[in-house]
Amino acid sequence: MADTARAPGEGSENLEEVTEALLRTVLEHLEYGRIDEIRAIAHDLSPAGAAYLLEQVNPEARTQLVGILKRDLDPETLVELDEDVREEVLEALEPKDIAEAAHELDTDDAADILEDLPDEERREVLAALPADERAAIEETLAFPEYTAGRLMQRELVAVPATWTVGQVIDYCREASDLPDDVYDLFVVDERRRLMGSVALGRMLRTKRPVPITEIMDPEIPSIPVTAEQEEVAHIFRDQNLVSCPVVDPSNRLLGVIMVDDVLDVIDEEAEDDLLKMGGVREDDVHAPVVRTARQRFWWLLVNLGTALLASAVIGQFEEELQKIVALAVLMPIVASMGGNAGTQTVTVAVRALAMGELTIANIARFVVKEIFVGGANGLIFALILGVITWAWFHDPRIGLIIAAAMVINLVCAALAGTLIPLGLQRAGVDPAVSSTVFLTTVTDVVGFLAFLGLAAVFLL
Amino acid sequence: MADTARAPGEGSENLEEVTEALLRTVLEHLEYGRIDEIRAIAHDLSPAGAAYLLEQVNPEARTQLVGILKRDLDPETLVELDEDVREEVLEALEPKDIAEAAHELDTDDAADILEDLPDEERREVLAALPADERAAIEETLAFPEYTAGRLMQRELVAVPATWTVGQVIDYCREASDLPDDVYDLFVVDERRRLMGSVALGRMLRTKRPVPITEIMDPEIPSIPVTAEQEEVAHIFRDQNLVSCPVVDPSNRLLGVIMVDDVLDVIDEEAEDDLLKMGGVREDDVHAPVVRTARQRFWWLLVNLGTALLASAVIGQFEEELQKIVALAVLMPIVASMGGNAGTQTVTVAVRALAMGELTIANIARFVVKEIFVGGANGLIFALILGVITWAWFHDPRIGLIIAAAMVINLVCAALAGTLIPLGLQRAGVDPAVSSTVFLTTVTDVVGFLAFLGLAAVFLL
Repeated sequence: MADTARAPGEGSENLEEVTEALLRTVLEHLEYGRIDEIRAIAHDLSPAGAAYLLEQVNPEARTQLVGILKRDLDPETLVELDEDVREEVLEALEPKDIAEAAHELDTDDAADILEDLPDEERREVLAALPADERAAIEETLAFPEYTAGRLMQRELVAVPATWTVGQVIDYCREASDLPDDVYDLFVVDERRRLMGSVALGRMLRTKRPVPITEIMDPEIPSIPVTAEQEEVAHIFRDQNLVSCPVVDPSNRLLGVIMVDDVLDVIDEEAEDDLLKMGGVREDDVHAPVVRTARQRFWWLLVNLGTALLASAVIGQFEEELQKIVALAVLMPIVASMGGNAGTQTVTVAVRALAMGELTIANIARFVVKEIFVGGANGLIFALILGVITWAWFHDPRIGLIIAAAMVINLVCAALAGTLIPLGLQRAGVDPAVSSTVFLTTVTDVVGFLAFLGLAAVFLL
Repeated sequence: MADTARAPGEGSENLEEVTEALLRTVLEHLEYGRIDEIRAIAHDLSPAGAAYLLEQVNPEARTQLVGILKRDLDPETLVELDEDVREEVLEALEPKDIAEAAHELDTDDAADILEDLPDEERREVLAALPADERAAIEETLAFPEYTAGRLMQRELVAVPATWTVGQVIDYCREASDLPDDVYDLFVVDERRRLMGSVALGRMLRTKRPVPITEIMDPEIPSIPVTAEQEEVAHIFRDQNLVSCPVVDPSNRLLGVIMVDDVLDVIDEEAEDDLLKMGGVREDDVHAPVVRTARQRFWWLLVNLGTALLASAVIGQFEEELQKIVALAVLMPIVASMGGNAGTQTVTVAVRALAMGELTIANIARFVVKEIFVGGANGLIFALILGVITWAWFHDPRIGLIIAAAMVINLVCAALAGTLIPLGLQRAGVDPAVSSTVFLTTVTDVVGFLAFLGLAAVFLL
């Protein structure tokens, strides 16, 4: 993706404002069938702007718009689209239009789009492409999703180690098919093994006769083609890279990953963590009702299980509840405070694990700290709630019991809030996706058990 | 920050593994006072690696390490450090060492570090800097935090519109103080107003006599110096930029924002949203116990308020609870399922709002869809829970009542889960920070009220 793909006149205006006003205009044009006006507007939009527009309108208008625009749609628009919307747009396009778009895109982006197509249509599109492009896309598709092999583009500048700066510059001036978004050149040996890289800025500042090996940086990071995209993001983040070469196990240069693709990865990973913590598997704003309901069902079913478990605990104290109805009124407070305090701990732990901040070196310190934090807030809320309860039910004993239960539950919440995500991570399970359900199971069970149990022992 | 700042030999190895083994070695060296070995290790580390190491060790070891390394510490390390840890490290350094570090950094990074210092020490550090650097840093610090003015660096290449490509290349070859991480040159008029940009790759491919204005892109985006960092991230994301010029209101070129600084912003914003949803104000892994406990206290206090409100609702049904103890056993299930379903909706809504995906154009569609999803899952879980309850308490009427309460609460959860974040956003309140607490208030109150209320009407 070229950083020169910019919308004329878009400048720094707020994308949302621009498209909200635009959207009304487009829908009006659509209503009155003013096709040329729509084409003119689409022509002036950046790919991101066009994608945003297509995402905002309803499915019928979307299909109509795609039908009108067809090849006038900038291929980059397909790259920028939300996956659910992209599927719809691709359905509205002919295989030959899709092939045309794939031809103009970098391999990694073309592969991303072809991946979403039904098998038969994908074959048709591939057949319509030149042999070398077809081969490149098929090779990319052979790499597992979410790995460096998928993120990299094959378009790059590699030069032999025997050249001088002048030869490299002449080569760049003559080759017409060079990608626009080059920031580093790569130096390779006769077997295409990566030897080093040269930043363009460095090259520009060097005189022509200097051998390229003299200004190349031999100690550049490279990414194995099998690396997970999360690891790729880590490397870019830690080393402040703009582009990074991808190599096979014998260090041969296969492609290059650009920072804009890494931005997308970082967004995806952040979205993943946020959504999973909230019990949603994926961004489903643009998904149909049935799919969304089905995906969310499973999470709710797991939660129903834990809620039933908590109810079974309460069921053990029917006698106490019947005798002192205040217990039924107060018991949700202890459970709820434990759940909230534990969620705070889990959130910090999940984020720290995702960023690689929690390791065997500082784990003990983290757990101990969280227990102190839980204990401190437990004591304060024990005091507050104890006094409130005493005043409410005119019985200091219930106040004492709820205070004790609060301290117990907040310390347990801290312990569970740290150990659950750490344990899941160690077991190879994503801590973002299931930490909270285990946590609330603990805080509900401990909360009800501590409060009702203490009441059973001391009040009856 | 230069993309050439790389650790020798670090390659693509996993940062965590590298530093876990290293950490043991460093701590051992520290124990036996082997200062030279520690210096040698630090010398070989990348800034991110050194920062990671300092974050992992305990505070005493940290102070010792900083005392040993002092000026051997790469200034970039300070930039990479977590804020809490950075404060400690800066305390262990002399003002003149900090001045030395600030001197080597880009203005934006230097300003970031000086910001954290106590007023008096900041004055000392500034006094130790050359006048032009001091002025640049002070100017940067005058911009509000989290705006483009703070993110930009002043180091850039700006050339007059009258030059040819050859003149620009000669200028670059002669100027020794050019930043390493240049990707675009900027063309300015005689009053330093931004006219366009030239990608380095483009320049390299052009012959010397061509006027620079001929290959410049006049329609580049630029960012107003007052723009919020969130907006900056949006512009980079939408237009796949690597660098972007920053201008004042009369379009004069003030600085340039680099993509690596934007990566940090995106990480920060994602972290913010995740942590706020979990009821934590900021990343507090490295903060002391008392501060962490105090910060989390307020969120728990708000939650106590909502829990008490829910208890007050339950308190209205003391009579019913005393007569049918099964109500006490079952009531948390309805509230909990509502809370979980609502959290799914809130999470999707908060993320969509953060990414600008929800606008007046599609809001109605989103709300209606969520209500259908809530209703569908409500009906399914009503059936499941109704049957379980009937079997458990041998009373079909309790099963019917809990089923009805479940549908009511899941539809209310969908409605509240969409309208609360949208309303908060419209009111100018960050939806990530307070949506869940409002939501659980609604789902608890509606859950208890629907279940106990229906029971009061139909069972007694």
